Amino acid sequence: MEEKYWIGIDLGGTNIRVGLVDDSGTIHKQLKQLTEAEKGPDHVLCKLMEMIDQVKENHIIEAIGIGLPGTVNSADGVVCSLTNLPGWIDIPISNIITDRFQAPCFIENDGNVAALAEAVFGAGKEYSIVYYITVSTGIGGGLCINKEILSGATGNAGEIGNIIVGESESKHSYLNKGSLEALAAGIAIMRDAKEKGLNIKYANEVFVLAEEGNTDAMKIAERTIDLLARGMAAIASVVDPHIFVLGGGIALSVPGFASMVKEKYEGYIYANAKGKIKVELAKLDEPGIIGAMYMAKKRLNNINSYEQRFFQFH
Amino acid sequence: MEEKYWIGIDLGGTNIRVGLVDDSGTIHKQLKQLTEAEKGPDHVLCKLMEMIDQVKENHIIEAIGIGLPGTVNSADGVVCSLTNLPGWIDIPISNIITDRFQAPCFIENDGNVAALAEAVFGAGKEYSIVYYITVSTGIGGGLCINKEILSGATGNAGEIGNIIVGESESKHSYLNKGSLEALAAGIAIMRDAKEKGLNIKYANEVFVLAEEGNTDAMKIAERTIDLLARGMAAIASVVDPHIFVLGGGIALSVPGFASMVKEKYEGYIYANAKGKIKVELAKLDEPGIIGAMYMAKKRLNNINSYEQRFFQFH
Repeated sequence: MEEKYWIGIDLGGTNIRVGLVDDSGTIHKQLKQLTEAEKGPDHVLCKLMEMIDQVKENHIIEAIGIGLPGTVNSADGVVCSLTNLPGWIDIPISNIITDRFQAPCFIENDGNVAALAEAVFGAGKEYSIVYYITVSTGIGGGLCINKEILSGATGNAGEIGNIIVGESESKHSYLNKGSLEALAAGIAIMRDAKEKGLNIKYANEVFVLAEEGNTDAMKIAERTIDLLARGMAAIASVVDPHIFVLGGGIALSVPGFASMVKEKYEGYIYANAKGKIKVELAKLDEPGIIGAMYMAKKRLNNINSYEQRFFQFH
Repeated sequence: MEEKYWIGIDLGGTNIRVGLVDDSGTIHKQLKQLTEAEKGPDHVLCKLMEMIDQVKENHIIEAIGIGLPGTVNSADGVVCSLTNLPGWIDIPISNIITDRFQAPCFIENDGNVAALAEAVFGAGKEYSIVYYITVSTGIGGGLCINKEILSGATGNAGEIGNIIVGESESKHSYLNKGSLEALAAGIAIMRDAKEKGLNIKYANEVFVLAEEGNTDAMKIAERTIDLLARGMAAIASVVDPHIFVLGGGIALSVPGFASMVKEKYEGYIYANAKGKIKVELAKLDEPGIIGAMYMAKKRLNNINSYEQRFFQFH
């Protein structure tokens, strides 16, 4: 049997990553470029299509999958709105890509796509209920049950940055007062560090200063870990996953992050669950590309098996 | 084809309910008696078996399903521990019942069982992701996805009473400080009402007094609704259900409860989800009996179809 190829795309606010992936999830060729989101959707779409061309070369592509940071209508292939990509309102991206490349194109929220990648190929591959959390500039996530993404009724499953975990007077854009993202994400860490006069460029440096004994940094680090643990305890009460997989720049760059979070988290869950739920770091280098490819593969298979059943009976 | 019969049981801290149910979910005969939980597991088990005998009469029973208020190991049919039923620690109830009645017996947490009943026969029957919440002396719940209970890794999915929704110094038994149950359940309402000198016997009377214009009662009622809405918003961020089904004594007896909760809840969710997620009252009179019966039926079918597949290939 000939090898089948897929295109997996991670379209983020900062970078676009495009990969040529085979059936086993191996990336054969990969390209990364700045998104230049501020130049608007037309510019980004043009750039994306050039990148697909360069990665695809002469390969025949089964399907193209794209993970996007925001709300998408994955059934219709329409982007509703994206965080940090201005102007992306109601864009029928699947149709645009399919017309250009003559291959089916499927889209999904990037947290869900990363969750699927880790559930199938990464840290969660032994488990049936996998909750992926990304701790970065923002906080997001995704839920996979039996290797299937749960998008939810309105595509908001996994949008855990909006869970209220503390008290706060300040409102953070479209999020709730006291929400996880508003209080514990990279932006919040930077804001708190600035208020305390800490001289840092990236949020993860707070954890370095805390390790060195800086009292202000220790307070910010502890609070961040505690709020994240509260959010995870809420998730555990709602769906009780077998494993939390932590990804994102902060989670992956701070030494001991998963074990610090786990220790706090264990204090917020029922006695009968203590020690039984895994908290581990994400394992894949490119969950966005791999997850987008695998999401597209599954959707295409579903359509094909539906059509087979349909033609069998009609 | 002859009618098939099942036994559905709701074993609660106050009452035991036993029903003879047919395949369509119709209850043919039903018995309700006080649990007298304080007399211990042996007494309760004896009473339960007598009740099954009386309801069963000469019918042949396909299987027996039991919903229980606490943590159960549903795979092994062992009760781990029950709320408000002292002494129920590690009791292999499925084996005991199966030995006595020569019929398979399956057990499940009562919130999950009620969720299944409402998802299949009640308010949630048109929807694929159904979150059931009971607001009563305590607060609990259950999640059904595509008419299947999601029990979770440790049986704690749906134990939403433990979600932290506010600040509080007082610790409520095994629950988190500031947890939904500790702050908004019937017990909390009664405690707050007593502190304010309100003369009531049941928690739902606070809502009557609030309606009459009593300022203290209005504050307690508003706070309860607000905390519940915060908990539901957390659930929406985690799994984004199509419908919340509200059951339990308080939710079902306070006029306009679902719409008050929904109004508050809409203030805590993303703009793109507003107005799209249903919040409705439970519809079934006996979700405990119906859900337990249907859970048993599904588990038996799963075993049978597994055995069929097994013998086909061996």
